[in-house]
Amino acid sequence: MMTMTEQEAIKGELLTLETMSTVEISTILQEAEHFAQGKQWKVDKDLFIANLFFEPSTRTRYSFEVAEKLLGLHVLSFSEENSSVQKGESLLDTVKTFEAIGANALVIRHPENNYFKEIRGKISIPIINGGDGSGHHPTQSLLDLLTIQQEFERFSGLNIVIVGDLRHSRVARSNADVLTRLGAKVKIAGPREWMAGFDTTYEHVSLDDTLLECDVVMLLRIQHERHDGSMEWSKEGYHQQFGLTLEREKRMKKEAIILHPAPVNRGVELASELVECDRSRIFKQMKNGVAVRRAVVKRALT
Amino acid sequence: MMTMTEQEAIKGELLTLETMSTVEISTILQEAEHFAQGKQWKVDKDLFIANLFFEPSTRTRYSFEVAEKLLGLHVLSFSEENSSVQKGESLLDTVKTFEAIGANALVIRHPENNYFKEIRGKISIPIINGGDGSGHHPTQSLLDLLTIQQEFERFSGLNIVIVGDLRHSRVARSNADVLTRLGAKVKIAGPREWMAGFDTTYEHVSLDDTLLECDVVMLLRIQHERHDGSMEWSKEGYHQQFGLTLEREKRMKKEAIILHPAPVNRGVELASELVECDRSRIFKQMKNGVAVRRAVVKRALT
Amino acid sequence: MMTMTEQEAIKGELLTLETMSTVEISTILQEAEHFAQGKQWKVDKDLFIANLFFEPSTRTRYSFEVAEKLLGLHVLSFSEENSSVQKGESLLDTVKTFEAIGANALVIRHPENNYFKEIRGKISIPIINGGDGSGHHPTQSLLDLLTIQQEFERFSGLNIVIVGDLRHSRVARSNADVLTRLGAKVKIAGPREWMAGFDTTYEHVSLDDTLLECDVVMLLRIQHERHDGSMEWSKEGYHQQFGLTLEREKRMKKEAIILHPAPVNRGVELASELVECDRSRIFKQMKNGVAVRRAVVKRALT
Repeated sequence: MMTMTEQEAIKGELLTLETMSTVEISTILQEAEHFAQGKQWKVDKDLFIANLFFEPSTRTRYSFEVAEKLLGLHVLSFSEENSSVQKGESLLDTVKTFEAIGANALVIRHPENNYFKEIRGKISIPIINGGDGSGHHPTQSLLDLLTIQQEFERFSGLNIVIVGDLRHSRVARSNADVLTRLGAKVKIAGPREWMAGFDTTYEHVSLDDTLLECDVVMLLRIQHERHDGSMEWSKEGYHQQFGLTLEREKRMKKEAIILHPAPVNRGVELASELVECDRSRIFKQMKNGVAVRRAVVKRALT
Repeated sequence: MMTMTEQEAIKGELLTLETMSTVEISTILQEAEHFAQGKQWKVDKDLFIANLFFEPSTRTRYSFEVAEKLLGLHVLSFSEENSSVQKGESLLDTVKTFEAIGANALVIRHPENNYFKEIRGKISIPIINGGDGSGHHPTQSLLDLLTIQQEFERFSGLNIVIVGDLRHSRVARSNADVLTRLGAKVKIAGPREWMAGFDTTYEHVSLDDTLLECDVVMLLRIQHERHDGSMEWSKEGYHQQFGLTLEREKRMKKEAIILHPAPVNRGVELASELVECDRSRIFKQMKNGVAVRRAVVKRALT
Repeated sequence: MMTMTEQEAIKGELLTLETMSTVEISTILQEAEHFAQGKQWKVDKDLFIANLFFEPSTRTRYSFEVAEKLLGLHVLSFSEENSSVQKGESLLDTVKTFEAIGANALVIRHPENNYFKEIRGKISIPIINGGDGSGHHPTQSLLDLLTIQQEFERFSGLNIVIVGDLRHSRVARSNADVLTRLGAKVKIAGPREWMAGFDTTYEHVSLDDTLLECDVVMLLRIQHERHDGSMEWSKEGYHQQFGLTLEREKRMKKEAIILHPAPVNRGVELASELVECDRSRIFKQMKNGVAVRRAVVKRALT
């Protein structure tokens, strides 16, 4: 199997942010900001996008759908359980089917890391990655970036801590790498076992030690569905030791913000009361998700 | 938890008919009748409505969808099984997600009675209740009212019997109360055990005794899925003792009509042949469901 | 129960090709070819079509949906598992519900052979059969015909072999009969046990004996889900004895083509490498499925 760099990229595809230049990232964020501020833009002919979701999703699935409909696209909503995947059809054959019947682009969420490697080079329409296993989730990263940019109008020099289950996260690596490329100072916090693969690159700190200087506390969801039931802390125990408690929030800088990709485990990653507190941008992130996806889908089709 | 009257109502929401004045009910019915007679009306911009169904439904779900599309809305169709509810996300967080990504109104069906009490005051878009547990089903009540009004052009003085499983019904109480407020004379029939909560207010009669004078026989569905398998009658036994048999139908007044919210248990609540008989308005009710929902959704968005 | 010929046909319905004249088939194929070549045509008012799928499907379901949206229709997508069928509602009552709420036509896929016989005469909107059990699949047959016609510009005199699991196939009988009516010479190949009902009418040959003269090799999917686990060949064994191997493909005529309705069992009905080989028309068939369905749905609504 060829690696991504061996394959020629399809115009408009978005698989990971790894190989995307900061210039291109800025261009997408600028377009997304225009949409966030009210820009209208629609296609002027019949174009189809297929949303292929092989895992449950609310935010990603429906914010893509809202974005696509605002762009004037026809949306095909595919869920594994009603499909020929039940008859053993492979991902590649499913994808090629949607290409054959007229999809102009695909959004795919799939439980397997790098699922797109077996597809690239075999279809001629762009794929937008809606999340692959514990690999990547580029539109989530972009909406995190947009939310930070709206707040601080820069990335350079920002102190950002990424907290929690980095190992199982789709966005931890891409966010850490991209934010570093954009000039931010990234640290990581949480149980040492969950820092594997990160703690050689990023400074592992305790949340308590870094809170006073942080501009952004980026909490990650504990993906209970990806653990095998072996989490060694109770929810309350995790919350007290590693979570953003009411007490910890009080020690944050005046302008600092809280991010979380949701769904939130209330009372675990952060205190339930903080989900809608003044410095929470959790619902702003969701709103920005639509703007980012409008920019990304427009890019895929133009 | 605050009660509904303690919360300020969101303009256009429709949770129950209990607190709605007869004037407002008449206004909705009038608008619905205009739609039933061919009125066209569409929104002139991109508006989104999310249909969140946490229980199976055919009639309610798809008649809302038809109504919404006739109004020119973008429709987001949510089913629990493909969503982050699978990851433990609460109803409130699900609802707030749809608000954040741009839904302008929500239609919700949920198995829990009064599910909306935990949401009210926490979102700023209107909820239209598509059925809560055995609590309420206001658009079903409104379509029943519209069907009666089309037939008799009044409610005052009509004799109406509500028959069957009142205790588990979403519409029995609201229909009984609203019809009484509108001037109809409501009686109830069926097994005494199923009249709990009703027989102190409404006269419990045998169907045979009341048939000769009734203008409307409103049959309720036996909700096998809400019983625990302990129904003490066979289907045939229930039909003979409490159902609308072919013999009973012959004794109805010339102009009297039959209503049933469907799905019908043919041969139980009524004889299968009566589902499409001259005095059945069962499919007319479904058709009216679209008109009523166009009026209700328009009201939520304007 | 009345047979189809006893019932008056509803204008625009498409249940099977059995009773359709070759003139009418040609008319549909001509319209489909126009759509395939870029013809645009849309309805000029609000019309609804309901896709009722009681079995999993990717190709049929989504190519109907693409076709319908290209025609400007509102699409209602129904899956059994979210519906009142869960409460025991019959197919007839489900269908009548969609008629009542405003569907102008229905596409139905159902696991029961001839499911439509219990519906015909009881609704007044056309049904397009999207596949009934192992009975019929007329739009699949039409797209096979369109693909052959595009290739050879005639049916008369073509040598066609239908290979594989004819007994469980939805399209084998209808394809064999229609192609014969259109002047093609049809033979059948595959395990003798799977030829039941066909080998009295069509010559049963070995694929090896007929390959040299064939213009079209029409492979059928082995429907593992319709077998009871008792298939007596291993996948590799079947492939070697009855499948289109790489070796067999080399002996095909220069202009001969391969058809398969998909999903393909790669390495069973044909070698995986042949799915996208020069003479494969498998993805062309899918593309033609949209054109055929645009013609069929337009026919149902005009």
